[in-house]
Amino acid sequence: MTTLWRDQPVGLVGLGLIGGSIGLDLRAAGLEVRGWVHRQATAERASQRGLASQVGTDPAVLAGCGLVVLALPLDRLLDPAAELIAALPNGAVITDVGSVKGPVLQAWHGRVPRFVASHPMAGTAAAGVEAGQRDLFRGRPWVATPLADTDPEALAVVRELATLLAAQWLECAAAAHDEAVALISHLPVLVSAALLQAAERGSAAAVAGGVPALVRALASSGFADTTRVGGGNPELGTLLARCNREALLDALSDYRGCLEQLEGLVAQQRWAELEATLAACQQLRPPFLKP
Amino acid sequence: MTTLWRDQPVGLVGLGLIGGSIGLDLRAAGLEVRGWVHRQATAERASQRGLASQVGTDPAVLAGCGLVVLALPLDRLLDPAAELIAALPNGAVITDVGSVKGPVLQAWHGRVPRFVASHPMAGTAAAGVEAGQRDLFRGRPWVATPLADTDPEALAVVRELATLLAAQWLECAAAAHDEAVALISHLPVLVSAALLQAAERGSAAAVAGGVPALVRALASSGFADTTRVGGGNPELGTLLARCNREALLDALSDYRGCLEQLEGLVAQQRWAELEATLAACQQLRPPFLKP
Repeated sequence: MTTLWRDQPVGLVGLGLIGGSIGLDLRAAGLEVRGWVHRQATAERASQRGLASQVGTDPAVLAGCGLVVLALPLDRLLDPAAELIAALPNGAVITDVGSVKGPVLQAWHGRVPRFVASHPMAGTAAAGVEAGQRDLFRGRPWVATPLADTDPEALAVVRELATLLAAQWLECAAAAHDEAVALISHLPVLVSAALLQAAERGSAAAVAGGVPALVRALASSGFADTTRVGGGNPELGTLLARCNREALLDALSDYRGCLEQLEGLVAQQRWAELEATLAACQQLRPPFLKP
Repeated sequence: MTTLWRDQPVGLVGLGLIGGSIGLDLRAAGLEVRGWVHRQATAERASQRGLASQVGTDPAVLAGCGLVVLALPLDRLLDPAAELIAALPNGAVITDVGSVKGPVLQAWHGRVPRFVASHPMAGTAAAGVEAGQRDLFRGRPWVATPLADTDPEALAVVRELATLLAAQWLECAAAAHDEAVALISHLPVLVSAALLQAAERGSAAAVAGGVPALVRALASSGFADTTRVGGGNPELGTLLARCNREALLDALSDYRGCLEQLEGLVAQQRWAELEATLAACQQLRPPFLKP
């Protein structure tokens, strides 16, 4: 019975934003939660915040867990420490929270028998042991990317976890997931970063032309919004581009085609078509937004 | 003396977001404000809201004004009605609020003797007679683009108006202004619209591949922010592209160069350079944001 996993402790490897938020919700639901972290100071703070019932820097803390969530940064998830592998309880269901699924499956499929690749699509700008919060996953998608030989009972356990956290369960192929997040998350970072670069070069040219700080002075909320993700964490942006390179390059190519089409309408002064295209874009956006 | 303009009524042609907001602030400062609008229903509502001391649908309402602000949509400003030209008081200082300055100067320079092209960079998503609000211009840039033969006293009057409204006064050449707004305002619309198109095509492809609504389900706040201006008013986006076409094409070309450079780093797996570039972008953004 899949529901039995709740009677055993749930292990969390990492108690940052995702791990800590899972811990808080699971403990509120009355489950026993064991957290493994690297540093003693983190362990102490995580205990103070109640992110897990028991927190340790020794992987032995995971002993007896029926479900272990690998809530690690993507690079550490893709290159797991030997002591982590050794500490995972035999027979436990193992899942991850990585934001690119193809490489995670390459790294983990076959390494542990009951592995389920999954990705809760929730987050804030915060990170670290202070970042975990209640209800982070409520109403947010939790995507699993099972393979043909993924243990169906293990998949059901992870689904129950997601449901317990009030997330919206989705299943798809890893490639479809990775293409989707390339379009939705990783492409916008580069699109937005390039806008910052273009504006900065224009600003520098204006200053050189004797117009001090004009471009910067004129920037308003529209520019601020469009450049937010391009001005985000550079390590994370690079890591995601590296781990999802093929899908990102495809998305960039699609994007370039769309932008060139718009540019062509402006160059050729096809104003009625430009207006129709922008009107279509106006209609496109609401379904992408959360209710 | 420039300060004498305050002793005469100020005329507002149009009482939408910009005109209405100017009217509210000027009346609060104790000035007499005359508003000219097209429709009787608008005139009545503008009077109810107190956007001007006197509102009429007959251009004769502008008689006796020492300063007239043309707070019209850009297309009507560039193709002014004959009755508007005829109604502008002799000797009055005339300014506009258009968001592209080269075409405004082409349309208005020499048509009235004391014309000053200007652009208050403030706005909300609202429009129409209900949109005007107090303090819309406080701390926002108000850019004037005088020509060599612009009447210096007329320029001083417009500067006093901007200062009275607590705006931040800037002067530059019309071409520099138009290049800056192309980068900051008009380019982001197309960059953002193309992202919506690329995501929609990816979504349609995923649905065709049997993955229903995945791309849409995964979209989060980053995607929402990056696509906001691309999902905006299509008439306005087209009008701005049409009126600022040359500068927009230059900005698009610069932008394409920046994006291709980023794409090259991903394609060639130059991760250290990508991270350095994204780190530079992270540093670039704060100076563009308002305090």
